[in-house]
Amino acid sequence: MATLVLLRHGESVWNAENLFTGWVDVDLSAKGESEATRGGDLLLDADITPDVVHTSLLKRAIRTANIALDVADLLWIPVRRSWRLNERHYGALQGKNKAQTRDEYGEDQFMVWRRSYDTPPPPIKDDDPLSQVNDLRYASLPSELIPRTECLADVVDRLLPYWYDAIVPDLANGGTVMVTAHGNSLRALVKHLDGVSDEDIVGLNIPTGIPLVYELDDDFAPLKRGGEYLDPAAAKAAIEAVKNQGANKNKNQGANKKK
Amino acid sequence: MATLVLLRHGESVWNAENLFTGWVDVDLSAKGESEATRGGDLLLDADITPDVVHTSLLKRAIRTANIALDVADLLWIPVRRSWRLNERHYGALQGKNKAQTRDEYGEDQFMVWRRSYDTPPPPIKDDDPLSQVNDLRYASLPSELIPRTECLADVVDRLLPYWYDAIVPDLANGGTVMVTAHGNSLRALVKHLDGVSDEDIVGLNIPTGIPLVYELDDDFAPLKRGGEYLDPAAAKAAIEAVKNQGANKNKNQGANKKK
Repeated sequence: MATLVLLRHGESVWNAENLFTGWVDVDLSAKGESEATRGGDLLLDADITPDVVHTSLLKRAIRTANIALDVADLLWIPVRRSWRLNERHYGALQGKNKAQTRDEYGEDQFMVWRRSYDTPPPPIKDDDPLSQVNDLRYASLPSELIPRTECLADVVDRLLPYWYDAIVPDLANGGTVMVTAHGNSLRALVKHLDGVSDEDIVGLNIPTGIPLVYELDDDFAPLKRGGEYLDPAAAKAAIEAVKNQGANKNKNQGANKKK
Repeated sequence: MATLVLLRHGESVWNAENLFTGWVDVDLSAKGESEATRGGDLLLDADITPDVVHTSLLKRAIRTANIALDVADLLWIPVRRSWRLNERHYGALQGKNKAQTRDEYGEDQFMVWRRSYDTPPPPIKDDDPLSQVNDLRYASLPSELIPRTECLADVVDRLLPYWYDAIVPDLANGGTVMVTAHGNSLRALVKHLDGVSDEDIVGLNIPTGIPLVYELDDDFAPLKRGGEYLDPAAAKAAIEAVKNQGANKNKNQGANKKK
């Protein structure tokens, strides 16, 4: 039996400012650092020692892992990084304010870009300062592999090779692996693990800074669908809060329309 | 041509308290964090982007690397860790106060343990709380590989396999590699690179937090013996300070003896 621990990074500065982030390398906010610390405390309490940690190439995930491992006194464990664990690329929306985008394009288009499974936002131009085509960390990727935009289906496609080729071998023979990544890359992984439908996955929210633990069978399938959060009550509250936030935003949007 | 960057970790809490540290996993002091920050600033100013970073398994080296890479906006680069880059194991002296040890055993014995090339301190007992035989991070090492004490010659012996098998391949084809480690593991590496004699190496001091850059030829030998510090004036001042500290300590010791 193998153990997979998923940890979503804490709040970033742009999350706090309500901007689309995607592949832009934004740092954690002070709140995000606290969330990462909580993640480390939970690992420590649960006495979980990963054999290896996998992170994306984005500092909000890397710093979340570093902070959590430091708190759990596990800085020494091996770490691997891959662009395949990066957040969904948000295309031309990167850096844009979410509320303004909603106002500009309307609720329907906005929700398609945010929540449809297979419709990506408009692509970012290569000469956009928020494009990643000239970012040194992707220098070893052929240009055609660097996303200009992605829908969640694209994230699943580019994440799965890393799951099979890098993470699964670390899980083999009863390993414990932690993956510290992003809302959408973890959603893509959970979709694969739990066999979530294209329709349902877009409504699934993974809270930040609360390790989600999957025990896996010999075929690397979950023993329990959905896994278990190390702090189930906090996870439930965080998931409810996101739902209510969405409801309030829709209400406000309706109110704005009536004006 | 390849580039090797050596970075010695900043001051640890036990350095500040004048205790022998060795393999005990002591954290950086606030001053040590500042030194790591300076290391990152110097990397940034010199526009050095390592292809990979190698660290020991000790948090004072790992946090120095993490802080320096964060400052240089390079958290995303790959990192590898090995016990072979650890500090010299200080045997039964680990955790002991240096001044008290000098008083207890006398200056001559003290200097043999600190500075002879091939005489290790007495071994630590396996049931000593400061022994590493039960430390989880070394669980994959057979017990006979975990040091109970080391002289600098032992460090050279256990470091070189990692140099040849892990670092050199990363340097091949013109790579840039950073090694973030300890006074004695870096001294062992410099001994090998510069061909320093057994007598001379024990007097060589590498300052903390100042990257030391070696350009290497196709045979991985330095183009310039001794390499170049990114802040040569600060490095020179730090080396002089260590020499004077030694001289003052000897003077004080003499004064104590006269009493």
